[in-house]
Amino acid sequence: MFQRPRGTRDFAPEEMAKRQWALDAMRCVAVSRGFKEIQMPIFEDLELFTKKSGPGIVEELYAFKDKGDRDIALRPEMTAQVMRFYVNDMAPLPKPLKLFYFGPCFRYENPQSGRFREFYQFGAEIIGSNTPETDAEAVSLASSMIESIGLNNYSIRIGYIGILRSMLKDLKLSDEKVSEGMHYLDKNDEARFSSFSKENSLPDEKVRGMMAIRNMKGGIEVIDDLEECSAKAYLKEFIGCLSLLGVRNCQLDLGIVRGLDYYTGMVFEIDAPELGAEKQVAGGGSYDLVPLFGGEQVFTTGFAIGFDRILIAREKESKITVDAGIDAYVVPMGDGTRKTALEIVAKLRSSGLSADFDIMRRSLSKNMKYAASIGAKNVVIIGDKELAKGAATLRDMVTGDQKEISMASLADAISSKKQN
Amino acid sequence: MFQRPRGTRDFAPEEMAKRQWALDAMRCVAVSRGFKEIQMPIFEDLELFTKKSGPGIVEELYAFKDKGDRDIALRPEMTAQVMRFYVNDMAPLPKPLKLFYFGPCFRYENPQSGRFREFYQFGAEIIGSNTPETDAEAVSLASSMIESIGLNNYSIRIGYIGILRSMLKDLKLSDEKVSEGMHYLDKNDEARFSSFSKENSLPDEKVRGMMAIRNMKGGIEVIDDLEECSAKAYLKEFIGCLSLLGVRNCQLDLGIVRGLDYYTGMVFEIDAPELGAEKQVAGGGSYDLVPLFGGEQVFTTGFAIGFDRILIAREKESKITVDAGIDAYVVPMGDGTRKTALEIVAKLRSSGLSADFDIMRRSLSKNMKYAASIGAKNVVIIGDKELAKGAATLRDMVTGDQKEISMASLADAISSKKQN
Repeated sequence: MFQRPRGTRDFAPEEMAKRQWALDAMRCVAVSRGFKEIQMPIFEDLELFTKKSGPGIVEELYAFKDKGDRDIALRPEMTAQVMRFYVNDMAPLPKPLKLFYFGPCFRYENPQSGRFREFYQFGAEIIGSNTPETDAEAVSLASSMIESIGLNNYSIRIGYIGILRSMLKDLKLSDEKVSEGMHYLDKNDEARFSSFSKENSLPDEKVRGMMAIRNMKGGIEVIDDLEECSAKAYLKEFIGCLSLLGVRNCQLDLGIVRGLDYYTGMVFEIDAPELGAEKQVAGGGSYDLVPLFGGEQVFTTGFAIGFDRILIAREKESKITVDAGIDAYVVPMGDGTRKTALEIVAKLRSSGLSADFDIMRRSLSKNMKYAASIGAKNVVIIGDKELAKGAATLRDMVTGDQKEISMASLADAISSKKQN
Repeated sequence: MFQRPRGTRDFAPEEMAKRQWALDAMRCVAVSRGFKEIQMPIFEDLELFTKKSGPGIVEELYAFKDKGDRDIALRPEMTAQVMRFYVNDMAPLPKPLKLFYFGPCFRYENPQSGRFREFYQFGAEIIGSNTPETDAEAVSLASSMIESIGLNNYSIRIGYIGILRSMLKDLKLSDEKVSEGMHYLDKNDEARFSSFSKENSLPDEKVRGMMAIRNMKGGIEVIDDLEECSAKAYLKEFIGCLSLLGVRNCQLDLGIVRGLDYYTGMVFEIDAPELGAEKQVAGGGSYDLVPLFGGEQVFTTGFAIGFDRILIAREKESKITVDAGIDAYVVPMGDGTRKTALEIVAKLRSSGLSADFDIMRRSLSKNMKYAASIGAKNVVIIGDKELAKGAATLRDMVTGDQKEISMASLADAISSKKQN
């Protein structure tokens, strides 16, 4: 017996129907808001990912050499790919460019609850616009996608990375030092931030101010505690847009740093508390990555949603039930009616009904059991006696009702039951 | 600038909309016939693929060692995965098991027209049944999926690998010799088949008979030329089922061998002549693979469709046009109407309409140009004067008609235009 690789999953019919239902719902929301779907390859040159995330990421990657001795890697995320795609082919398209994408990503890490080596992500980007309503449109899409699958218990934490970054920059620190300081703030490491501040002779008052902002979190009214600055004005307008767009469940958390250098302004994270320790299901913000990949600077706001995690969260809240049953299952009783069964199934299918039939030549009782197992809503039984009259027996699998019906009106009878 | 890896593709919005449309159409056909979707990982242990296709396949694979020193490979096809999944988890499910799946596969080969290193396949299997109607249901699904995307110019060639195989077996040849002989017949290599026959002292009459069957092709009436045998009876019944299920464009081609040892009975290939040299778009048959992966013998009929190729063939026949435009694009004229614009777009969206709005704060003329570029069907213009009256201007982007309309009836007005 062969085992599938560790940290990967097979999806059986029942699970896959749920995933496909959720994917359709989320895709539908994105499309209905003017986002357009794109798709990129499963693997890329390794350098694409190290360029974005630093050489340290190689340890977490499925990286290998192809037969042409090129270093390639299975994608750990899709934003770097979108940036490459944008720089190479999409830069001339009209702005704003609203894009979304879905697919498997790969990380070589120890599998645990809600963390897989092959996992699925949904992502979106708005390229070419930097207004508060742009950022609000991105957050609104993320929350609507989450709500589209019926997940109600989630919270959106909103921050603005630009505040702390600009405070460090105002102290005339080098870019490397700014990154180092942001790293300690991200980890909420007061001790190391404090020694970092001493080493670089940062004024005490400023250091206390930054730590205070780091810990500013709560309802959106927390914003009023912030000193007047351009970031505060932006955030206020942004929060107003969120409210107009109907986004619920927002909190302010100015401590969000997201641990990566390329975020520039608004940042956000979405949690599903049902998930416990691994509760983050989405994250994003406005960032600046295009120049890194050789393009001209352009404003970008984007996010990623962990598809596996939001499904787990939704199922913890309430079971997903997908109606995967077909309209009719056709059973011939014996050799003499088999041809008619095939004709009937072909006719039902061409009438737009979902229909299947007995391909194993089994007994009526075995067929009834099978029809129930596949969730057939009706069974059409073709017996010799009824056939002689141009009729068949139609059995409703929900009510158990059974009646004789002419072949000619079978499709209509099943269709009309469907509408009721 | 980073290039994407050779032989892979990015799909831009327009192309992706076509692919998603085709995928939905094909998925819908499969579901409506009682096939259930499953999904397997992008990579597997290398041995899964060498077990099915022999060690020679490694040359064509993206094979590598993971960080745990395990040999893994990106999947070159999905049938071996389905067999593994069946043996491990699905064997107890009620029979027949009707499955389908879609996803990217990978082969390290020289990219050329219609051949990619990352390509997309649709596949289906019926497990646990071996009647003529089972095989007919599989071929019927393949042809209906192809027709669902509007590809009309295709032909189905049907063969029966069991005839030649059983003729070789009847001559008391070893399994290896049977495979060798089948290989020469597959390649239509008369010279080598002739020397193979001499080496193994096969009777001249039998050799001539096999070569005659090898070349038997044409309309389905060709079947009458075949000597009476169980295969002939099976094929006749199978062809009858195809016709009852409404399958068109069938021809007989008893020379189809498909080059692989695991096919047992009916085999078929579908060509799209528009594609020239690389014209095959689908292939399959009944086969015996489950025991190879450690399961009990079970009848299986399946096929794969080259998703990229059928799209190319369809586009050669006639351009695919997908309506990807949104219902409404909302434009505020100046700062005073911006909040109202957000409220309107939120209301349109919650009414089930697809709607977008100006996030870049541009002029009316720039917004009109953008609305046209994204295929918006209507533009809602919010001006100060109309706003004071509780109204907006609704412009039909197809006819150019423009009229003032109350805010309260905007959603209804746009919805009713949609139904017309």
